[in-house]
Amino acid sequence: MNASIITVGDEILIGQVIDTNSASLGQQLSDIGIRVKKTWSVSDDHGQIILAMQQALDETDFLFMTGGLGPTKDDITKKAIADFLGVDLYFDLPTFERIQKIFERHGREMSPHHHDQCLMPIGVQILRNSMGTAPGMLFKYKNKMIISMPGVPYEMKAIMNEEVLPWLSQSSDTHIYHKTMLTACNGETTIETAIADILSEMPENIKIAYLPSIASVRLRLSGTGKEKSVLITEVEKYSDKIVSRLGEMVFGFGESSLEKELWSLCVSKNLTVSTAESCTGGAIAARLVTIPGSSAYFMGGIVAYDNAVKENILKVKPETLIQYGAVSEQTVIEMVNGVTSLLKTVIGVSISGIAGPDGGTDQKPVGTIWIAVGHEHQQITYLLKAGKDRTKNIETATVYALDLLRRFIQKHY
Amino acid sequence: MNASIITVGDEILIGQVIDTNSASLGQQLSDIGIRVKKTWSVSDDHGQIILAMQQALDETDFLFMTGGLGPTKDDITKKAIADFLGVDLYFDLPTFERIQKIFERHGREMSPHHHDQCLMPIGVQILRNSMGTAPGMLFKYKNKMIISMPGVPYEMKAIMNEEVLPWLSQSSDTHIYHKTMLTACNGETTIETAIADILSEMPENIKIAYLPSIASVRLRLSGTGKEKSVLITEVEKYSDKIVSRLGEMVFGFGESSLEKELWSLCVSKNLTVSTAESCTGGAIAARLVTIPGSSAYFMGGIVAYDNAVKENILKVKPETLIQYGAVSEQTVIEMVNGVTSLLKTVIGVSISGIAGPDGGTDQKPVGTIWIAVGHEHQQITYLLKAGKDRTKNIETATVYALDLLRRFIQKHY
Repeated sequence: MNASIITVGDEILIGQVIDTNSASLGQQLSDIGIRVKKTWSVSDDHGQIILAMQQALDETDFLFMTGGLGPTKDDITKKAIADFLGVDLYFDLPTFERIQKIFERHGREMSPHHHDQCLMPIGVQILRNSMGTAPGMLFKYKNKMIISMPGVPYEMKAIMNEEVLPWLSQSSDTHIYHKTMLTACNGETTIETAIADILSEMPENIKIAYLPSIASVRLRLSGTGKEKSVLITEVEKYSDKIVSRLGEMVFGFGESSLEKELWSLCVSKNLTVSTAESCTGGAIAARLVTIPGSSAYFMGGIVAYDNAVKENILKVKPETLIQYGAVSEQTVIEMVNGVTSLLKTVIGVSISGIAGPDGGTDQKPVGTIWIAVGHEHQQITYLLKAGKDRTKNIETATVYALDLLRRFIQKHY
Repeated sequence: MNASIITVGDEILIGQVIDTNSASLGQQLSDIGIRVKKTWSVSDDHGQIILAMQQALDETDFLFMTGGLGPTKDDITKKAIADFLGVDLYFDLPTFERIQKIFERHGREMSPHHHDQCLMPIGVQILRNSMGTAPGMLFKYKNKMIISMPGVPYEMKAIMNEEVLPWLSQSSDTHIYHKTMLTACNGETTIETAIADILSEMPENIKIAYLPSIASVRLRLSGTGKEKSVLITEVEKYSDKIVSRLGEMVFGFGESSLEKELWSLCVSKNLTVSTAESCTGGAIAARLVTIPGSSAYFMGGIVAYDNAVKENILKVKPETLIQYGAVSEQTVIEMVNGVTSLLKTVIGVSISGIAGPDGGTDQKPVGTIWIAVGHEHQQITYLLKAGKDRTKNIETATVYALDLLRRFIQKHY
């Protein structure tokens, strides 16, 4: 089974908006075994939309369209679909009543534009939009399917997750099951080598995908099968094997993140945490507070960018800075001791490095970054040798620091 | 004049990579008056590429292609172009010598794959790639143009900026001139209303575009004309009018940013800065240190997430926290006084708010955020009423804090 995607909108073609809908649809469809063969972006133009629809349906079984359904765009996609199918528009009362309720709840009046959102091509199957007014639409065309959704990414995702995917899986006799393992601080090649023998014995119906981002790799197992419970057991079996082989490299599953794991670890173990950052300038702390409720364990931190702050506030000894330098194991250990004692937390994490592009030496080139985690009585340290790009170095160092903190807690608490 | 874009690559169709090349090309082309009519993403498939090329060249004057030129992809795009044009491939010696030099510089051997990168369709005009091995290619086809570039975004951008755009402007008798003004903390509508009369008297050949992002709007004037010097004078005249009307709303021009402006202001005026952050958790400091050389003026900061840190380190009075609360004008003033005296800086910026999703009250709903800028003898404060979304609130508050700092410095130093 294969599909095409048409995204409609001038704002995409002039580059004002990056089309993320195609990628998000491509991922969801390939997850359930539907191959996206081609995507188009076309302008808000009746003829262009119909031409692309024709080409798409000549080549593929499913056509997914996003955009051109909003109240300000004259519903251009809807008219184009109606004309393509050779049907008229009708006023859909259930849609009207739903939109009216949304407006009543917000104490606002419906505009004539919103009345137009209730006009639907005859033969439509309406897909409920839980995040906005414009509904999605499904059409059967010959032995093919047309699915049209609004262009606003979160509305499109809601319709896909709540309406389209359940409908697709219901109308298929093949089940799909995914399991995603999250790892940090190890490259794709290291991971692949470590689990090569497990992968080689994995049956044909289970595939692995490596999804890399900065200093992290997500491993996704995707299995397909006729019997749901058999399938789940089988995928979970291989996931267990991989997790036990990779050990502490795996920090979580699914939609988790290092900062979510740290929140849950610290709250459940009743730990408090503080940060002492030089080269990352607050980025580690900023990552921790993205999680609601982080105030339950994260007390705060010191951004010790200048050496005077390291000395005067974190009480790093002047002789340490002179003898070993600000970017050294000794300095990050004293920073972690300083911040835990100053902020009275159980654990601290500290970092000092040369983010670049300048400031490197032969002994300590750009990208040399020291990290420490612990407290006055026990610390672990890590020397990260990153690259030349300042922004990437800061992001990489932040992930390494969060992961070192996670490993320290899992080992000692 | 109009154009189509074809991006080649399975990784785009399965959603592993978001296609940003189309948006970046769309922006650059519309900037110089070439309208992108349609974009395609197709798989690494010979027949699919040729089909899309045919459709694209039927409809538009220019065809821009990215992807499928790397050494691991069997140069699929190159073969498809050669077959589409009905020409053979030849071994291009200058390209070979250039790639060989790159490898010598890195002390590495060229692989057979890299030899294949020197094969070119006959009739090609080579576009130099200053950022990688695979060159770009330009072909004349009937009275149309085909431009093919690698898919790696920074390589594609380098070829566009260094080769394609100069060539396009040379071969046209119309000049294009842009001027971008950067504003923060005011919405599109406010700005539009403030400059409506200036826009209404602007001639037909100058257009304005509003490019919004979180808490910021870029205003871009784009002018076209036959006489370059006349055009520049005219666009600059309207830019000056808009800037003088908007006053301190405009913080910079072109590719600048609030953190770049702060770096240059503080360094030139010999100021030092520190931060005291609660709800943003270090995000303000982290933004400042993204600029190389920020250590020249940014000393560091305190992430005072817990009230104990506000009291013990920043010396916020317990009675202030009790009487007014942690999210209050009084607290942020004491935070700014505390951090400037502790870190011995000329100026400080402080922030305390309810980022959400929980923690709001009737008096102080989620999104209530207080900001202060100044020092012991003088402070300015701002009450930001943001929304319900935690991530967006933190990003918005960070922009407002940076901008308040910028306004304070411009006014008083």
